[in-house]
Amino acid sequence: MGWAPLPTPSSPAPAIIFLIILLSFTFEYSIAAAPSISSNGAGLLHRLTHPPFTPAHIRASLLHHQSSSHIPKSSSSDQSHGAIYTYKTLFYTQTLDHFSFTPFSYRTFRQRYLVNDEHWGGARRRAPIFVYCGNEGDIEWFANNTGFMWEIAPLYSAMVVFIEHRYYGQSIPDIAQSNHTAETLGYLTSEQALADYAGLIRDLKHKHLAEDSPVVLFGGSYGGMLAAWFRLKYPHIAIGALASSAPILQFDDLVPLDGFYRIVSEDFKNASTSCFETIRDSWDALSTVYEESRGQEKVAKLFGFCSNVSADLWSVQDFLYTAWVYMAMTDYPYPTNFLQPMPANPVETACKAMESLPQGSDLLARIVAGANVYYNGTGQVPCFQLSSDPHGLALWSWQACTEMVMPMSSNPNNSMFPAYTYSLQSTIKLCSDYYGISPRPHWITLQFGGPDIRQVLKRFGSNIIFSNGLLDPWSNGGVLSDISDSVVALVTAKGAHHVDLRAATESDPGWLVQQREEEKKHISRWLRLYYADLRAARPT
Amino acid sequence: MGWAPLPTPSSPAPAIIFLIILLSFTFEYSIAAAPSISSNGAGLLHRLTHPPFTPAHIRASLLHHQSSSHIPKSSSSDQSHGAIYTYKTLFYTQTLDHFSFTPFSYRTFRQRYLVNDEHWGGARRRAPIFVYCGNEGDIEWFANNTGFMWEIAPLYSAMVVFIEHRYYGQSIPDIAQSNHTAETLGYLTSEQALADYAGLIRDLKHKHLAEDSPVVLFGGSYGGMLAAWFRLKYPHIAIGALASSAPILQFDDLVPLDGFYRIVSEDFKNASTSCFETIRDSWDALSTVYEESRGQEKVAKLFGFCSNVSADLWSVQDFLYTAWVYMAMTDYPYPTNFLQPMPANPVETACKAMESLPQGSDLLARIVAGANVYYNGTGQVPCFQLSSDPHGLALWSWQACTEMVMPMSSNPNNSMFPAYTYSLQSTIKLCSDYYGISPRPHWITLQFGGPDIRQVLKRFGSNIIFSNGLLDPWSNGGVLSDISDSVVALVTAKGAHHVDLRAATESDPGWLVQQREEEKKHISRWLRLYYADLRAARPT
Repeated sequence: MGWAPLPTPSSPAPAIIFLIILLSFTFEYSIAAAPSISSNGAGLLHRLTHPPFTPAHIRASLLHHQSSSHIPKSSSSDQSHGAIYTYKTLFYTQTLDHFSFTPFSYRTFRQRYLVNDEHWGGARRRAPIFVYCGNEGDIEWFANNTGFMWEIAPLYSAMVVFIEHRYYGQSIPDIAQSNHTAETLGYLTSEQALADYAGLIRDLKHKHLAEDSPVVLFGGSYGGMLAAWFRLKYPHIAIGALASSAPILQFDDLVPLDGFYRIVSEDFKNASTSCFETIRDSWDALSTVYEESRGQEKVAKLFGFCSNVSADLWSVQDFLYTAWVYMAMTDYPYPTNFLQPMPANPVETACKAMESLPQGSDLLARIVAGANVYYNGTGQVPCFQLSSDPHGLALWSWQACTEMVMPMSSNPNNSMFPAYTYSLQSTIKLCSDYYGISPRPHWITLQFGGPDIRQVLKRFGSNIIFSNGLLDPWSNGGVLSDISDSVVALVTAKGAHHVDLRAATESDPGWLVQQREEEKKHISRWLRLYYADLRAARPT
Repeated sequence: MGWAPLPTPSSPAPAIIFLIILLSFTFEYSIAAAPSISSNGAGLLHRLTHPPFTPAHIRASLLHHQSSSHIPKSSSSDQSHGAIYTYKTLFYTQTLDHFSFTPFSYRTFRQRYLVNDEHWGGARRRAPIFVYCGNEGDIEWFANNTGFMWEIAPLYSAMVVFIEHRYYGQSIPDIAQSNHTAETLGYLTSEQALADYAGLIRDLKHKHLAEDSPVVLFGGSYGGMLAAWFRLKYPHIAIGALASSAPILQFDDLVPLDGFYRIVSEDFKNASTSCFETIRDSWDALSTVYEESRGQEKVAKLFGFCSNVSADLWSVQDFLYTAWVYMAMTDYPYPTNFLQPMPANPVETACKAMESLPQGSDLLARIVAGANVYYNGTGQVPCFQLSSDPHGLALWSWQACTEMVMPMSSNPNNSMFPAYTYSLQSTIKLCSDYYGISPRPHWITLQFGGPDIRQVLKRFGSNIIFSNGLLDPWSNGGVLSDISDSVVALVTAKGAHHVDLRAATESDPGWLVQQREEEKKHISRWLRLYYADLRAARPT
């Protein structure tokens, strides 16, 4: 397409880090299951035997097809709150490909959506419809972790709808049920997902004769990006969007590439400098053990991996990245069970666990103690696997290999992770090897706005809340200051990944209570304006 | 998709009229060449021998593959003005399918675009770039009929760019070079075209280091719709759009369905009531002749068809529809050669020609005299064919069978054409038979806004001029009143189809001169605001 590639990395960095970033650190969950590969056995073997091209958990699951895990498979409730919401599970006949008219594009799939209308004021009263834009996982999981919507719906007499993202959960097109290739995954894109939501919402309103009912969108993380983008592209279908922890700027070079790992690192440094230093020094220490005789065995024993796990260096690094990053992302002030059962303030807890070991303890023993806060918060896990995907997030790797190219580096001046300079070339190589296709790294900024995105949002956006917590590394790509009166940023210094969307708890700090009040004020204002416009347009 | 179909027509109407509307009365030109058909020979034969399912000119060209015509094949200049513009012809490597990531989607095609930068002020001065959004034909034809852009470019130190629409002119993907089926035509959509323009413009600016040069869009008819839609969907790429004669409301039931034929009819009635009545009565008269012995022969002789033409009733009706509709559309106040070489004020001229025959003349002889103003403005055509497509517009029928479903009826209370009530079912039947696929009739309103489009444009649009001339039947679907301070309607009582985009002439009436001055004022304002914003954002 003639777009100049980003500069080649100035210093070569271990490909391993890059791979972890790309395939492992998706928004919600680190451990991806195996996409099947269309290439021949030799190519597959090459990838399997050459670690740099495939993250450990994917290689492992390709080998073993294992999905057992220490994480409970059921994701239908947030066990830490016991919050169970009731809803009808419905299915919509969705078009596979909205943007072309080949016979193949007319294929359909069943898109799952969840509806609760017990508090809905009805079409005659033009009562609102609250719609969650599903992201890369099982929609029930999001429904049960988005208590805010459920809690405020009665205040607004709103219908509550959660729409599952295509290719996730139970909304998987037939072609991709068992066969994951570029041919079958090709229609897993954000634009198709937005068009899905548009069509489903229009149909839903039509069926309820609720053409005049305003739709308010909610979304967290990638779902928040979709909510904000939907508001830009389909303003006629939704009157506003709460986009929580939506890193819409984490593309091209719109924000510093080293911000993500800087924030994770700062979270740990703010908990304790020695904690930060221990993690920073652990990567070399880990490598050193692997150079020792029976190093892998020692590590497996130290970390408590199950006996069937092949704990090569690469896998263990991946295992640790996951723990540190996700504890930073979900550094909530009360115990949760979003990704894993975790105590309140997991970063601080992990640092304390690391420091609670007697003076002179082995550095890696401290690391294990810290990681266990993430992997064994319940203390009930007898041993660790390296592969599981209870929330069905595997296909984020496809999205990351096509349009959701979110460049990241790790800068030794501010990061406790090994140095890495982002390389588009490496992404292209990886994705070409893995999926047989090359990313379109500048497509998202072409679709939704690049360097001028703030200007675009100022002039053309309205009724969008970008909420971000600064503990969350994804806040690096978030909108952190107001763009206009109606495109606003709600930033909390102590917030983590879309904490505002979670159910209220008794232990919610004041700033979180306040944040949710602000969000309600904005939503109320959108609705007031909408109804005023409607009255003005149709005085009768 | 669960959308309720539009009501079934209350009175059955001749399928013929509907077919003419759908396949023949595209924006710019009536006579479509033959798409090849993927179905088997028997199905094709059925269509060929059962006129209701295939318009005459398509049937004819399927039989004869003839492309000879009385219309000059060269379309590179508007001969009535002798205006020849100079430009570089360039090609851009364009992605076949922007919205999916299947291996097939990565195919590319060469997209033609024309560039003249002789007046461009350059990147350093952030001089503007004027881009014409190509519509359903050869881009050189549009370039040579859009004199307004060429004439004002020097005033703004603007680069002039005309981008050809995919699948037209020389911008045809390999797969569709010789094989026209739903598989090969499936990527001919307006959303793909908009994404093409976005990518090409970004690349063009990048190549010229002109990231800060504002882009102003121009488009007429379908190209005007694209310009307006582009401004809604890609506001970060163009600062404003002049959308001339763009019927963005001619979808679903946003405007009265009988408006198009009402306006054509009124144009003739305003020229002369007897002219209107003659045409109104001619359809029955024509049918009557066909019931006579050797009726077809008589008609062929009367109309002056070439000896190889099979002038069945259906073809002749089509021939007449074309003449009346296009004379109304291009009822310009000076001689032109846009679709055909034509005198000034062709509607009035045709009516005068019809009335100039001696009293008592045959009704059909008058019709021939009127139609000849359209078909034989030069007086040089020895006989008429019924099939030609000099501007390469054939594939509009594909677009009309997929997303560009623009419903129209003919109401006997206000129309000189035979009565017809729009039927979605008939469209579905026709398109299924012809292309093997069913339209998605509500897709455009889902993408770009339906009943609330004015509200959408008010809140989210800015810097769009909708210009319409009320002589133009497409003004029925146009935006005819201001939506906001910056989404404005310029309506001229005596204007025809995108007359404002044409080159100035000495015989331009005052209202046209004034209209173009208004357009320049708006464009100047957009640019002033853009530069002011830029200075504010980057004071240095």
